[in-house]
Amino acid sequence: MSEIRQNLVTKEWVIIATERAHRPEEFVHATRPLTETRPVWEPGCPFCPGNEEGTPAELLRLPPTGPWQIRVVLNKYPALKYDAELIRHSDGIYRSITGAGHHEIIIESPRHNTTIALQAPAETTLALHASRSRGRFFAKDPRVEQIIFFKNHGPRAGTSLVHPHAQVIALPIVPHSLRTRAEEARRYFDDTGECALCRMYQDELHDKVRLVAENQGFVAFILYAAFSPFPLWIVPRRHEPSFLNATDQELEDLADIMYTVLRKLYIGLKDPDYNYVIRSAPLHDPGLGYLHWYVSIIPRVSRSAGFELGSGMFINTSLPEESAAFLRSVQVE
Amino acid sequence: MSEIRQNLVTKEWVIIATERAHRPEEFVHATRPLTETRPVWEPGCPFCPGNEEGTPAELLRLPPTGPWQIRVVLNKYPALKYDAELIRHSDGIYRSITGAGHHEIIIESPRHNTTIALQAPAETTLALHASRSRGRFFAKDPRVEQIIFFKNHGPRAGTSLVHPHAQVIALPIVPHSLRTRAEEARRYFDDTGECALCRMYQDELHDKVRLVAENQGFVAFILYAAFSPFPLWIVPRRHEPSFLNATDQELEDLADIMYTVLRKLYIGLKDPDYNYVIRSAPLHDPGLGYLHWYVSIIPRVSRSAGFELGSGMFINTSLPEESAAFLRSVQVE
Repeated sequence: MSEIRQNLVTKEWVIIATERAHRPEEFVHATRPLTETRPVWEPGCPFCPGNEEGTPAELLRLPPTGPWQIRVVLNKYPALKYDAELIRHSDGIYRSITGAGHHEIIIESPRHNTTIALQAPAETTLALHASRSRGRFFAKDPRVEQIIFFKNHGPRAGTSLVHPHAQVIALPIVPHSLRTRAEEARRYFDDTGECALCRMYQDELHDKVRLVAENQGFVAFILYAAFSPFPLWIVPRRHEPSFLNATDQELEDLADIMYTVLRKLYIGLKDPDYNYVIRSAPLHDPGLGYLHWYVSIIPRVSRSAGFELGSGMFINTSLPEESAAFLRSVQVE
Repeated sequence: MSEIRQNLVTKEWVIIATERAHRPEEFVHATRPLTETRPVWEPGCPFCPGNEEGTPAELLRLPPTGPWQIRVVLNKYPALKYDAELIRHSDGIYRSITGAGHHEIIIESPRHNTTIALQAPAETTLALHASRSRGRFFAKDPRVEQIIFFKNHGPRAGTSLVHPHAQVIALPIVPHSLRTRAEEARRYFDDTGECALCRMYQDELHDKVRLVAENQGFVAFILYAAFSPFPLWIVPRRHEPSFLNATDQELEDLADIMYTVLRKLYIGLKDPDYNYVIRSAPLHDPGLGYLHWYVSIIPRVSRSAGFELGSGMFINTSLPEESAAFLRSVQVE
C-alpha cells in the first residue's frame, strides 16, 4: 500500500506510490551521450580555453596566474543586473522591485568533457572556493538578501551550454518558500530546542537505511520523504547556517563526498541529468540556532504533472530505502 | 531591465527577465502531432469505446443510459486506495500516514482525437459535472481533507495515455503549500477586509492589459507575477471557496470560457502541452471569507532548473502583458 510521508525539516508531504513502484535500475534513461564521450575542447564553446573573449567580464580566475582552472564571468543574459538601482514599485494592488542583484557563471574546468563525477575532488574544491568567494563578495552588497548557488547538468535539468559550469544568483528579496522553510525550522527549534537538520542527519547516520555516503565533515542520504526517485541531501556535521562560513577543510570534505555521490549516480544511472543547490541562510535573518546549510542534489529522472502543480505535493514511484541501497551498492573505485 | 514581481494571492516572487525576453510566438514547440490528427478510435486504447473491460471499476457513466459520453473509473495504478484504513505512524522523528484516499480517472470523451479546444463546450460541461459529482461524493468520506482536480495534456505535462481524460485525487491531509496559501489569503483578508482573489480579478478586468477572456460567470487573465510564459487563472465572479458549490450555470460558463482560452492556446501555440488544476478550499477549513476557488491553466512551454529548485522562485523570459495581448489577438471562431 502507498504511504504518505512528511519531511521533518520542510513539513512537506509526499506520496510514496508502491502500487506502481519502479526498481532503481528503471530510472536509467540514456537520452544523450555520456559526458566523457564529448571532445575535451570544442572550437565553438565560449567556455573553452582560447575563447575567453566570448564571455562577458571575467570577475575571478583561479589560479590567478598561469593557465586557468576556474573562471567566474557575468552571465551573458543576466536575470538580475549588478548596476541596477534597487527601487520598489507599487502599482495598485501589485508590488514589484527592479531586477537589481547579481547573476554569475562559474566555469568549473577548462575541459569541455568533464563533470564532478569524472574529475579529481581537488578540482571541485577549487570551484567551491570560487562559489564561497563570490558569495562573500555579494554579502557585502546591502541590496542582497539571499544568495542561490546551483548547477544544471544536462538538458532535463535546464542547461543550455554543456561545458561544466555552475551559477550564482544574488537576490534583493528572500523567496517566499525559503521564508516558509525558515519558519518551520524555527518552530521545530522552539518545540525541541534542537536544529531539525542536526537531528535528521544524526538519525540517518544511526538508521543507515537511507545513508549513501559519509566522511569526516558530511553525511549524504536519500530523503525519507523523497519527492522523486533519488533526491540526496549532503549535510555538514558542524551546525552552521551559512555556506559562506564553511571552512577550507569543509569545502575539501564536501568536494570529496560530492565526488562519491555523483560518481555513484553517474555509474549507476548512466550520467543522469541533475541539479544541485546549495541551501544557505538568508543574509539578514541568519537563524543561528535553527538554520543549517546543506547541498541538495536532484537527479531529473521523473517529471511533475498536474497533481504536483495543484497540490505542491509529489508522487514518488520508488522506495527511498531501495534507492539508497542501490546507490550504496554502486562501487566508485 | 528585469523586474521582480509579487503575486498578490500567494505572495510568491518571480523574475521577469527582459534581458532574454522571448516573443510569444517563440514558445511554439511542435514536438508532437496535433491532437486532431490522431484517429478517432484506437484499437489498443483502454479509454476508447469497446475496450471498457480494459479499465478498473466504472464508478459513474454519463449519460446513464445509451452510448456513454463520460466515464469515471478507478485509476489502474492508484496513488491512494479507497479501501485502505487511515493509520498515522510515527517512526522516531518521522511521520507517515497510510495511503488512504481516492484516485479516479474521468474519461472526458468517447473520441480519441479530441480535447477541450476541439469540442463543443457542452461536452466539457458534462465532464465538469462528473468532477463536481465525484468531489461531492469524496467530501462525505471523513478521511478526506483535500481534493485535487487536474488534467495532464501531452507528454511534457506528464500524461501517459493520450485519450482525453482528467483525474481526481482525494487526500487525507492538506498539503503544506495549500496551508501556506490559505494563511496568506487570510492575512490579506485580515488586513483589508476583502478576498484577495475577488480584488485581483476586478483589477484585471479594469486594467485589461493581462485580460484574455471574460463571460457572465468568469474572468480569465495571465498572472501579473507569471512564473512561466502563459499561466492563466480563470476566476468565478461569484465569491465562493469551494468548487463543490459551483452552480450548474457556473459549470456551463466555465466550460464556455475554458473552450475560448484553450482554443486560443491550441491555435496560437499549436496545441501546447498543458496542465489544468481546479483549486478548491480544504474540506474542513473552508475559509469562507477569504478563500476563492479557481482554475489554473499552465502551458508547459518552459522548463524549471536549479535556480527554481533552490529558491522556489521562477525566472520567466516573457512579458505577461505581451502574452495576454498575443492570446487576445488569436481569433477562435
